Amino acid sequence: MDDNSSGSDVLYSSQLLQTLDYSNAVTSPSKLAKHLVLRPLRCDDYSRGFLDLLSQLTQVGDIDEKLFNERFKQMKNNGNYYVTVVEDVTTSRVICSATLFTEYKFIHNAAMRGRIEDVVVDGEYRGHGLGLLIIETLKLMARSLDCYKLTLDCRDEMIEWYSRLGFIAVPTRSNMLTIRFDD
Amino acid sequence: MDDNSSGSDVLYSSQLLQTLDYSNAVTSPSKLAKHLVLRPLRCDDYSRGFLDLLSQLTQVGDIDEKLFNERFKQMKNNGNYYVTVVEDVTTSRVICSATLFTEYKFIHNAAMRGRIEDVVVDGEYRGHGLGLLIIETLKLMARSLDCYKLTLDCRDEMIEWYSRLGFIAVPTRSNMLTIRFDD
Ligand SMILES: CC(C)(COP(=O)(O)OP(=O)(O)OC[C@H]1O[C@@H](n2cnc3c(N)ncnc32)[C@H](O)[C@@H]1OP(=O)(O)O)[C@@H](O)C(=O)NCCC(=O)NCCS
Ligand SMILES: CC(C)(COP(=O)(O)OP(=O)(O)OC[C@H]1O[C@@H](n2cnc3c(N)ncnc32)[C@H](O)[C@@H]1OP(=O)(O)O)[C@@H](O)C(=O)NCCC(=O)NCCS
Repeated sequence: MDDNSSGSDVLYSSQLLQTLDYSNAVTSPSKLAKHLVLRPLRCDDYSRGFLDLLSQLTQVGDIDEKLFNERFKQMKNNGNYYVTVVEDVTTSRVICSATLFTEYKFIHNAAMRGRIEDVVVDGEYRGHGLGLLIIETLKLMARSLDCYKLTLDCRDEMIEWYSRLGFIAVPTRSNMLTIRFDD
Repeated sequence: MDDNSSGSDVLYSSQLLQTLDYSNAVTSPSKLAKHLVLRPLRCDDYSRGFLDLLSQLTQVGDIDEKLFNERFKQMKNNGNYYVTVVEDVTTSRVICSATLFTEYKFIHNAAMRGRIEDVVVDGEYRGHGLGLLIIETLKLMARSLDCYKLTLDCRDEMIEWYSRLGFIAVPTRSNMLTIRFDD
């Protein structure tokens, strides 16, 4: 969990990760195998297979390093993006990623709403608790960033999995509607 | 639809509104009564009852002008917030508001996802097509900002209303899960 092992550009301060209190969480980073490191996304994760990992979730398309760097900078300057990953340091590959981002509100005393997006664990690493760990981590971050609520949308078959982590379908208020412009 | 009628600070450039093509939309600003003006949120809408309007949607809390100005500036500096309102210029009150904001993605060729939030029409002005107009406007803006999709979550009883505007519940992928931290 250190910012400077590679000296590279980090999306957000890893201080935030280091101050989280997992004592009421279903898991914690202390359970991670020694060769797995939980940390913020780095700009040089482009060369650690970050986009290959995302392609296990959905279409990524043709993103060269320049475009990746631009998007990384936009997110960093924006200040509301907390893309969090697990790296296998034996292979130097990113094998798990999820994004928290925070949205400004006027309502609820000019609050922040947290959102979880783009959750994925590499196929070879599934079923070992990495998914639970990354979501617990983003939940604790959202709370520590003073979000009044945290939401996500997922495929219906994942509802049960997220419900283990405390996410609920609020009665009469748990739908999401979509218009696609790319069809 | 002009930026400078009051010389006040505007959340985003109203140029964006002026270039929208409503020819395939279910309504358009040309249908607005003369005393109603569709425009970006302004900082001085604090004194035009903007927060009173939001309180018809949900809890707003105690937001003084200083806090309002800070949040407005954060949104403006952020650059991804498009809070759009209708003002009744005879009463100088904001009587309709909805927010589009855009989220940076790595997936889908480093795309943008659009989100609609906090849609409300003043009780005295409902049923005259203002809701349809503001949503059509945000849809056109999302498209012109190159969003690959646009989503929203709403109370179940509003699904039918949004379906008129082209929003659909995507099969197996139209749920939203929540954790609240403020209960
Ligand atoms: C979903 C995903 C992130 C889960 O990560 P993971 O590291 O494999 O999950 P974990 O090991 O932390 O999960 C532990 C438990 O959840 C269970 N589980 C897995 N998928 C489940 C599902 N769909 N519903 C219910 N439980 C599920 C596992 O069996 C395991 O149970 P156990 O501890 O009793 O053995 C991962 O499978 C993945 O990346 N899938 C493809 C992408 C995707 O679907 N992302 C979510 C988009 S909404
Ligand atoms: C929902 C809301 C934004 C609609 O705005 P509006 O200006 O009253 O709506 P419009 O006049 O554009 O709507 C036109 C049509 O929708 C219909 N309609 C209204 N509510 C509806 C509903 N829940 N389901 C289906 N149709 C509905 C109207 O009857 C009208 O039909 P018509 O043209 O055939 O007469 C407004 O009622 C409101 O602010 N409600 C309270 C806050 C809220 O619920 N916000 C949405 C949160 S998800």
